[in-house]
Amino acid sequence: MNYIFIGHYKAEDVLMQRASAASAKSLLTSAILENLDIEHSSRMFAIADLGCSTGPNTFMAVENIIEALTQKCKIEDYSSLPEFQVHFNDHVSNDFNTLFANLPSDRKYFASGVPGSFHGRLFPKATLNIIYSAFSLQWLSKAPQELGDVNSPAWNKGRIYYTDAPREVGQAYSLQYAKDMESFLAARAEELAPGGLLLILMPGRPDGTLPSQNSLGPFLRPLESCLTDMVDEEIISDHEIDSFNMPLYSPSIEELRKLIEKNGCFGIARLETLPPRSVPLPSAEECRSGFESILRKHFRSEIIEQLFERYTAKIAGQPPVKTIDGFAIGLFVILKRNV
Amino acid sequence: MNYIFIGHYKAEDVLMQRASAASAKSLLTSAILENLDIEHSSRMFAIADLGCSTGPNTFMAVENIIEALTQKCKIEDYSSLPEFQVHFNDHVSNDFNTLFANLPSDRKYFASGVPGSFHGRLFPKATLNIIYSAFSLQWLSKAPQELGDVNSPAWNKGRIYYTDAPREVGQAYSLQYAKDMESFLAARAEELAPGGLLLILMPGRPDGTLPSQNSLGPFLRPLESCLTDMVDEEIISDHEIDSFNMPLYSPSIEELRKLIEKNGCFGIARLETLPPRSVPLPSAEECRSGFESILRKHFRSEIIEQLFERYTAKIAGQPPVKTIDGFAIGLFVILKRNV
Repeated sequence: MNYIFIGHYKAEDVLMQRASAASAKSLLTSAILENLDIEHSSRMFAIADLGCSTGPNTFMAVENIIEALTQKCKIEDYSSLPEFQVHFNDHVSNDFNTLFANLPSDRKYFASGVPGSFHGRLFPKATLNIIYSAFSLQWLSKAPQELGDVNSPAWNKGRIYYTDAPREVGQAYSLQYAKDMESFLAARAEELAPGGLLLILMPGRPDGTLPSQNSLGPFLRPLESCLTDMVDEEIISDHEIDSFNMPLYSPSIEELRKLIEKNGCFGIARLETLPPRSVPLPSAEECRSGFESILRKHFRSEIIEQLFERYTAKIAGQPPVKTIDGFAIGLFVILKRNV
Repeated sequence: MNYIFIGHYKAEDVLMQRASAASAKSLLTSAILENLDIEHSSRMFAIADLGCSTGPNTFMAVENIIEALTQKCKIEDYSSLPEFQVHFNDHVSNDFNTLFANLPSDRKYFASGVPGSFHGRLFPKATLNIIYSAFSLQWLSKAPQELGDVNSPAWNKGRIYYTDAPREVGQAYSLQYAKDMESFLAARAEELAPGGLLLILMPGRPDGTLPSQNSLGPFLRPLESCLTDMVDEEIISDHEIDSFNMPLYSPSIEELRKLIEKNGCFGIARLETLPPRSVPLPSAEECRSGFESILRKHFRSEIIEQLFERYTAKIAGQPPVKTIDGFAIGLFVILKRNV
């Protein structure tokens, strides 16, 4: 599990992962021990990881959750341990074959893969006890349309994101995020059994900052810079870059709190920031794994290889980004389904 | 859905499929209307297809099952239609990415993929209402070991199957099938909710015949013949073919009935033969899709391409096989979980 990453790109090397694994585990354990209401009649716990990618992060998180559930059952004097079912969810384009091949052979749960967008319903009503999502909720269902509209004050000329953009661009992103979170929360509220928990790790920004401050921007800047170089060299057109925007957003705590309260289905058991940390810029390989498919949908195939070659040169020797550079902070949220 | 096929190989062209679809649908519909006990408190029906492959047969079957369930709910005056969840199961090596990409966009169910062998547990206890399996149960968990043992009376020299083999070879297969069916039925008995149904289509043989009569043999004969040609030409060794056996079996109705009764968890609501029909020999492409992975595990990679080239030549102009040629018949089984 990582503090900051974008979709399938996990912005940490293995050492950093291990260092944060212990604290992530204790976050999950206390979240479950302190907040989950379990019925003694339950013979089965169902867990879903939304935005699971192909492992191994999802397997570590799921193992931690099951360990905490087991501990909870022992504390509550369960006569026999219930069974566990884990649903791994990601977009239909996720490589589920690899996910399934990587499933730990000594796992103590029944595994299933669930393809589809978490902006809509994925599971039958009241069938899940724990829904977990780690650094996937920064993905919007789409970039806001007005960003590509030359007549809109939110026209995002020459940029692929809202950092350093006019305030209206950030507002358009924020509005799209509000719509997407409402769909997300409404769907999860249906799927969670009463007393169930929604555990979210996601990038955010400190209260009192504008969307363009403390965003994922520093992370995307090298890619944006390669694209604008290619516009300058007339390899891609103005229109091509003006009409492309990354569907990513990181809210402030206050912004998120309001959306959760407006939705009304959940009680907020915890909503806090994670300790700030440095994050290395994604390598060309990591950038490719995170963004290639979305870039290919918009730009001509011919430019993609060249783009990643330029990217490698661009980031050579660049230091990691830190919160102080305007980089997003990590948020940890525990929501409890209102009964 | 098809009457006779082997694993991923579906031995029918589209026209035959369409012709049989109507009768398959009516089999499933009456099975559900006549045999399923539903509780009015159920807000959700869970269905599993074991050995689903990548579609489209599984999608047609699932649609028929859901249509029948909907009809049943209307007859029983359900106040509101329950939700449906469908679990598509196959080996972990199945192409789930293709399965997920092929999912009907207008489906009326929540879909999940469940990787693993149906010879063991796949789902939590009592969580399924209908388990369906179409022409997958002919696959054994493995070929019986003694077939490759030169000192055993069941040594299966020069053959890859039990057709035309000594009686002991058929018996070894039959014994393995009994073990596998016991594991299969024990697992399904745990997974089915009380009153749930297990619906099975599978190849079998008429009562009073030996295993070697009415088997899947005529279907495998061209492949076996190519392999023995290659032994004669010293392209593969005696040992290579002697130690390879297809893990496929088709039981008699009586044999199957006894295994179900011995298991004891199910009542037999129906156990009958399907009308006999002609089946074209699998094309090289179909043979490859059904058997390539199992052949590659045993034989050297170098011979595989050559084998399928020979196969194409071997089957050129050969007529379809019929029950009268000793080909397996189709069985339809409805089992009801004892409460």
